[in-house]
Amino acid sequence: MTTPHRTVAIGSRRYPLYLGSGGLDSVGTIWGALAPTSSAMVIFDDGVAHIAARVARSLDGAGIRVVEAAVAPGEPSKSLGEVERLCRLASTEGIRRSDAVVAVGGGVIGDLAGFIAASYQRGIHLVHVPTTLLAMVDSAIGGKTGVDLPEGKNYVGAIWQPHLVLMDVDALATLPARELSCGFAEIVKYGLLAGPAFVDRIATWPALPGKTEDLVRLIGDCVDQKIAVVVDDEHDLGRRAILNLGHTVGHGIEAAGGYGRYHHGEAISLGLLAALRLSENHLGLDPVWRERTIATLGRHGLPVELDATISVDAVLAAMARDKKAAAGALNMVLISAPGAPLTRQNPDPELVVAAIEELYP
Amino acid sequence: MTTPHRTVAIGSRRYPLYLGSGGLDSVGTIWGALAPTSSAMVIFDDGVAHIAARVARSLDGAGIRVVEAAVAPGEPSKSLGEVERLCRLASTEGIRRSDAVVAVGGGVIGDLAGFIAASYQRGIHLVHVPTTLLAMVDSAIGGKTGVDLPEGKNYVGAIWQPHLVLMDVDALATLPARELSCGFAEIVKYGLLAGPAFVDRIATWPALPGKTEDLVRLIGDCVDQKIAVVVDDEHDLGRRAILNLGHTVGHGIEAAGGYGRYHHGEAISLGLLAALRLSENHLGLDPVWRERTIATLGRHGLPVELDATISVDAVLAAMARDKKAAAGALNMVLISAPGAPLTRQNPDPELVVAAIEELYP
Repeated sequence: MTTPHRTVAIGSRRYPLYLGSGGLDSVGTIWGALAPTSSAMVIFDDGVAHIAARVARSLDGAGIRVVEAAVAPGEPSKSLGEVERLCRLASTEGIRRSDAVVAVGGGVIGDLAGFIAASYQRGIHLVHVPTTLLAMVDSAIGGKTGVDLPEGKNYVGAIWQPHLVLMDVDALATLPARELSCGFAEIVKYGLLAGPAFVDRIATWPALPGKTEDLVRLIGDCVDQKIAVVVDDEHDLGRRAILNLGHTVGHGIEAAGGYGRYHHGEAISLGLLAALRLSENHLGLDPVWRERTIATLGRHGLPVELDATISVDAVLAAMARDKKAAAGALNMVLISAPGAPLTRQNPDPELVVAAIEELYP
Repeated sequence: MTTPHRTVAIGSRRYPLYLGSGGLDSVGTIWGALAPTSSAMVIFDDGVAHIAARVARSLDGAGIRVVEAAVAPGEPSKSLGEVERLCRLASTEGIRRSDAVVAVGGGVIGDLAGFIAASYQRGIHLVHVPTTLLAMVDSAIGGKTGVDLPEGKNYVGAIWQPHLVLMDVDALATLPARELSCGFAEIVKYGLLAGPAFVDRIATWPALPGKTEDLVRLIGDCVDQKIAVVVDDEHDLGRRAILNLGHTVGHGIEAAGGYGRYHHGEAISLGLLAALRLSENHLGLDPVWRERTIATLGRHGLPVELDATISVDAVLAAMARDKKAAAGALNMVLISAPGAPLTRQNPDPELVVAAIEELYP
């Protein structure tokens, strides 16, 4: 991994994005050549301590002093209490404005460490080393960072673009199958946003993760697609909303399940199907796309039927809480065909209910 | 107060700055005309509840729903705990991404409420209504926000430019004399940065606050000077450092006194004198400027002699902690003449000690 996949330019930030196999041991030399950083704080998910250790060794080998900070896996770590603990550790350990935070983990770590990088001494360097498929195709790109409040997810955060992103698919070797599938749900989303050719390519995807070269190319295509949307709307005021395809109902299902019944990608799997059903009613989307999506999701272990213990009312109530926080209107992303998304304000409530009801077995 | 003093353009943000007498009752109409905000969270210093009430009435009169949040006066309110409390209140009260935080108070409130505006739902509108002279000439301009950690001041924060700043000198009518003087210390700093004419103008300033029109013009000139520096260096990587004239030793004195013995402006008063003494040794500054500065500061009740119970070692230790956090080098702003500042890296330690020692009676 000696040359970057591409240079990313978002807002006033330009940074290289590396993508491939074997880069975990090159983080130190790559970062050392980019910025004159004397120290780095490696904030990592305790579940991938073995990967963090490789990254730390690599930084150390490049003459960069490493401060290691383990974080418990799971959403509860995205808290202001954890921000305070880690910022205090950073200052006790002498991390300076010119130093870097290196995030090693999935979306939770990226969001938490990203917000710390954005806020510690009003902002320091940030390096993302995503270790889940979901983080690679989604959360490591775009600069959204933040932590949760009891009142809602990501209620306190910042837009803070990284200074380097390094994606090594070797990190996925030890990722549980369920988490690989969760990342795949976001890839299916990108397919529906991109167009029929991308949908076809995903429809024939073998067992996850698949051949390394093919997986690297697939991740790269998703990343490019996300960047293309984000560069036009860094602060999420317009077009970036299309990336929420499947997320309106998906978030509702995730919350209604208490964030335990369904992991994020699983809730998105169901949310995508609801959005496609609604797209049929509102925009005349050909039902064949939903049938094919059900087949693709199901083949990779993603849920295509909603647990009967989760009621439509519970999902709608969670969606209403989201809506209240966001803008007052219920915005849903629909597609008239793969590759043709649009944002629909306040879709017919009865049709929304019907789309969720159709998820039950 | 019907037309702005000026438009401020920093980074990608452009906003109007109002300055004058009687604007507190116009916040609602001015803000209502600027942005389609349905609600505003007024975060205010409990010590200026009477001013916050006027601002709230004004917003309410413009059809903007007001959520009021009182904050205890003083530096301890700049904490992550307070950020969490206020963000939870914001979400419970239904404050949305399109709404605004209105900060009514001095530097503490501006820093705290500014960081909340920067972070709540990844950033919402921010209106500064500074109520102290110090906040008007300094902290309400430039976008620095943040809270403290036990390890240091402003260790967690953001650069977040406001969307409107409204300075009404009527707010100063109830400001304690000691706080007026503290603001004046920063004005003396601007004089030394600006040049001999500004120094002369300040040297003849009558008892604070002085005639309203003159005070408004003086504040405006300080504000313009700060903006001129900040526009070139929003993220404080270069020239913005000159605004730290008097602050290196000043912060050391403030910390060595446990933040109780000297208020910020008082510590800056002493820090300015130390910086001038060092400027004489390093840059051959004419001693007449220090003599005149001592007279000006003293005439407005600011300390010009350091309390003998605060040792040089305590001041140096606090400066070393600052230095460690910042960049590893001790940077001090010196002037070769009024209007000619420069940053000096690692000034002669013996001369620094001598400059502090000279502060004792």
